[in-house]
Amino acid sequence: MSASPGRAPFYLGIDLGGTNIKSGVVDDSGRVLSSVSRPTDVDEGPEAGIDHLAEAGHNALKEAGLAWDAIAGVGLGSPGTMDLEAGLLLDPPNLRGWENLPIRDLLSRRLGKKVIFQNDGNAAAYGEYWIGAGQGVRSLVMFTLGTGIGGGVVIDGEILEGRHSHGAEYGHIIVEMDGGRVCSCGQKGHLEAYASATAMVKRAHEVLAGDASASALRKVVPHDLDSRLIAESAAAGDALAVHLMNETARYLAVGAVSMMHTIDPDLVLFGGGMTNAGDPLLEEIRRNIRRMAFPIPAAKTRIEFARLGGEAGFVGAAGWARAVVSRTS
Amino acid sequence: MSASPGRAPFYLGIDLGGTNIKSGVVDDSGRVLSSVSRPTDVDEGPEAGIDHLAEAGHNALKEAGLAWDAIAGVGLGSPGTMDLEAGLLLDPPNLRGWENLPIRDLLSRRLGKKVIFQNDGNAAAYGEYWIGAGQGVRSLVMFTLGTGIGGGVVIDGEILEGRHSHGAEYGHIIVEMDGGRVCSCGQKGHLEAYASATAMVKRAHEVLAGDASASALRKVVPHDLDSRLIAESAAAGDALAVHLMNETARYLAVGAVSMMHTIDPDLVLFGGGMTNAGDPLLEEIRRNIRRMAFPIPAAKTRIEFARLGGEAGFVGAAGWARAVVSRTS
Repeated sequence: MSASPGRAPFYLGIDLGGTNIKSGVVDDSGRVLSSVSRPTDVDEGPEAGIDHLAEAGHNALKEAGLAWDAIAGVGLGSPGTMDLEAGLLLDPPNLRGWENLPIRDLLSRRLGKKVIFQNDGNAAAYGEYWIGAGQGVRSLVMFTLGTGIGGGVVIDGEILEGRHSHGAEYGHIIVEMDGGRVCSCGQKGHLEAYASATAMVKRAHEVLAGDASASALRKVVPHDLDSRLIAESAAAGDALAVHLMNETARYLAVGAVSMMHTIDPDLVLFGGGMTNAGDPLLEEIRRNIRRMAFPIPAAKTRIEFARLGGEAGFVGAAGWARAVVSRTS
Repeated sequence: MSASPGRAPFYLGIDLGGTNIKSGVVDDSGRVLSSVSRPTDVDEGPEAGIDHLAEAGHNALKEAGLAWDAIAGVGLGSPGTMDLEAGLLLDPPNLRGWENLPIRDLLSRRLGKKVIFQNDGNAAAYGEYWIGAGQGVRSLVMFTLGTGIGGGVVIDGEILEGRHSHGAEYGHIIVEMDGGRVCSCGQKGHLEAYASATAMVKRAHEVLAGDASASALRKVVPHDLDSRLIAESAAAGDALAVHLMNETARYLAVGAVSMMHTIDPDLVLFGGGMTNAGDPLLEEIRRNIRRMAFPIPAAKTRIEFARLGGEAGFVGAAGWARAVVSRTS
């Protein structure tokens, strides 16, 4: 693809996930000039991983029709655990075998470019803040709904990284402190254990195993049951599916309200695959928030879906690189 | 009292509470030159209230042996709800009759000085950050334990005010979303409904009404039962009192862990009357946090008691005025 030229300077964003590496070039106004993806191949180990990251970057440049000297900054987003200041992956559950990896400096050396390292949830939130659903707001709290629940907070252009790179990990706030569900992290009662796509599917299986309801979900091969199917069945009026979606909306509202009483942002965003459920989910989240939040934030805080979809990660990584490069130059 | 001269410039802090107005002069290094208190007399209404605030300020100056022209800034801390940007009290439950009051500008006009307005929990946290238990850290999360649970977050010298003056109201995060206790605010399952001094006393009454335990607390006239007595009985080995204190420690740890997974500060502080319970309470909070938090923040985040006691509010209000005046001059 030969993209239109865009507005210099240009930034390369790379979004490292447990399954895929997404990458793209973004111009100074936030326009996406290229978007590529390749498998992460975690099992090939970290040395091959650095190769794959570099290749993803090369491919993004090629698709944008740009050379390396046009790139003013490279942003890398990655799942944790990590040490952002040191540029290290520490013990990332989604990148087994990549422990204690100085990923930022290894990639920087490979590319001959300074690399700005960021948590993937934070990067996605920054992408929305820069050119997505959060354009123009001063602060936002974002929830990314998938296998787990990712988070990212931006306040006045700053990412809430936290002092130990654990900022905005509010998939793991405690919403049910007594007898709560077990979370993927092993602790109990976390938001993620209730409100993630995985958690909703688990709740569906529990209900289907436990009663004889005539839900359409019963006709699905158990292995095929996923959050998309539940959302579709809810849209078609299936009572169990509607119930599962509404429960999820309430759980998400609990998380949102706790963040509205902590961060108190202009905007709460929900992104990730589950938002394909569309307006009924969003309206139910809003209804629950209005019921549970303090009157002023309930009335004033905007509650929206994210807009950048699967590109939020690399767009945000590129945008954050732009912000860091701009302030240090 | 004729105080030693201190280091100019000087700042006046006023801490408006539902019962008392505390005020004092603080020098540029954070040394407290005077500390005075008078009743708020809420029922006399807001016009008299402005008089009382001004009088408290005058008394603090007099005790410090300073004239108004020595004062470089005035800070006012107050309970909410409020609009910090506009300088308004909105609908403060602890200041009935003072609704929709342009308190900042009224006091400013009365004193002939610019007044910097702040939430009382935020001011206390800033006081600890400036010259208390948080000196030298980059970020802290503070819990003030009293009738309710106040909060304040400071990150890199900035107070997390929130966009609708509801930042750090994490006494009202949801820790038990199903069947939770009713909070003073009317909602259910909030941290404050479990972990405040008031909540602990309520739990004590419930246990005493419900069983025949031989607790020393049973000998107390019900009306006299307060958190101090429970703490003293716990220190003397009373099993029920120990149980109540340990429950409280666990609830506070739940709140702290959720903030460690959201703000991820260097330091979590607990202040307010209940911290008179001393080391056994602090150790039990720490033990629960270490058990529930992610390994890295569990190992690295310091958990301490606040140090400024009842002066944190006016010291922080003065310190915040100093910060705001310094950056705008």
